[in-house]
Amino acid sequence: MTNPENSKPETVAPSAPPPAAARDLENQTPAAGGGGGGGGISNILRRWKREDLIKRGSLVCRGLGLVFSLLAFIIMASNKHGDWRNFDRYEEYRYVLAIAILSTLYTGLQALRQFNELSTGKEILSRQTLARIDFFGDQIVAYLLISAASSAVPLTNRMREGADNIFTDSSAAAISMEFFAFFSLGLSALVSGYKLSNQTYI
Amino acid sequence: MTNPENSKPETVAPSAPPPAAARDLENQTPAAGGGGGGGGISNILRRWKREDLIKRGSLVCRGLGLVFSLLAFIIMASNKHGDWRNFDRYEEYRYVLAIAILSTLYTGLQALRQFNELSTGKEILSRQTLARIDFFGDQIVAYLLISAASSAVPLTNRMREGADNIFTDSSAAAISMEFFAFFSLGLSALVSGYKLSNQTYI
Repeated sequence: MTNPENSKPETVAPSAPPPAAARDLENQTPAAGGGGGGGGISNILRRWKREDLIKRGSLVCRGLGLVFSLLAFIIMASNKHGDWRNFDRYEEYRYVLAIAILSTLYTGLQALRQFNELSTGKEILSRQTLARIDFFGDQIVAYLLISAASSAVPLTNRMREGADNIFTDSSAAAISMEFFAFFSLGLSALVSGYKLSNQTYI
Repeated sequence: MTNPENSKPETVAPSAPPPAAARDLENQTPAAGGGGGGGGISNILRRWKREDLIKRGSLVCRGLGLVFSLLAFIIMASNKHGDWRNFDRYEEYRYVLAIAILSTLYTGLQALRQFNELSTGKEILSRQTLARIDFFGDQIVAYLLISAASSAVPLTNRMREGADNIFTDSSAAAISMEFFAFFSLGLSALVSGYKLSNQTYI
């Protein structure tokens, strides 16, 4: 392997303090490492592969979140069977529906944007803004989802002790879907946190 | 300001590929920057200050989390006023109590460990293990806290529509304390995420 050290001082020289220079050098690797050696290139390839994996993983998480929130929304919204078996008579179920709609909108928009980015390669906002929106958005929606799902569990349990019919079954299904959506978005929040911390090159 | 670039190739030379060299250099700054120049030293000082601020911020978050969980635990555990006004007749309140105990134990142990670290400067486990335990622990306890708090809200609301007495007031207080504990731990999870991503120098 060739030693890439002899070509480095020219690349680094313009910037002043050592830590800043080290950072600049890290950002410049695609250009500087390209003329360097085999070790540099394999490192860059590995980093690209990791970036790609993270982007795809994040898209899969959001896609699953979208599917589960949409299911929760549809199941809960169609859960009207007359008299006391209407979801809108109970504040817990209204909360579940509201958060399912919000989560569907959020994950739908995010998945659309990400898919668009993956296929065209263009980005609408700056990367740092996006990473922040991703991280805080995922986190907040995940908290809202688990809050809504767990607020509706006791009421459903109590109803099922008395009678077990299509209304309680549909409610339980919608709550489960909301839990699954929570797991997807919690995972997505972890991935976004990783992205936010490595925002220089993702 | 002196230009520190002329002393750098000797420091970097032993390590091979450019990205790895950049990382090594970043880790070595306390030694390498000391002989460098004014810019390097001020950078290091700034980094030390930030580290210190983060450590203290994380300790404050955990401390607040401990206080609020302890309050939720005490208020809920002493919430027994006979007949239907005993907290242990309702699964929601039992859940609130269980999570308050768990959160008290977790935040207590973490605050103790952190305080010990700050005063003696010694660490029991490796930093990477600790950063991971911190991040996942904070996140999981935050999710549990919001889940318990929001599961108990509808029951309390319904009871207060009928009668407003010391039992419902204590329940509401315990639930509020659990919400505050959730906010502290959610913030602490953000700080831990930052620490986990920058684990090379914190």
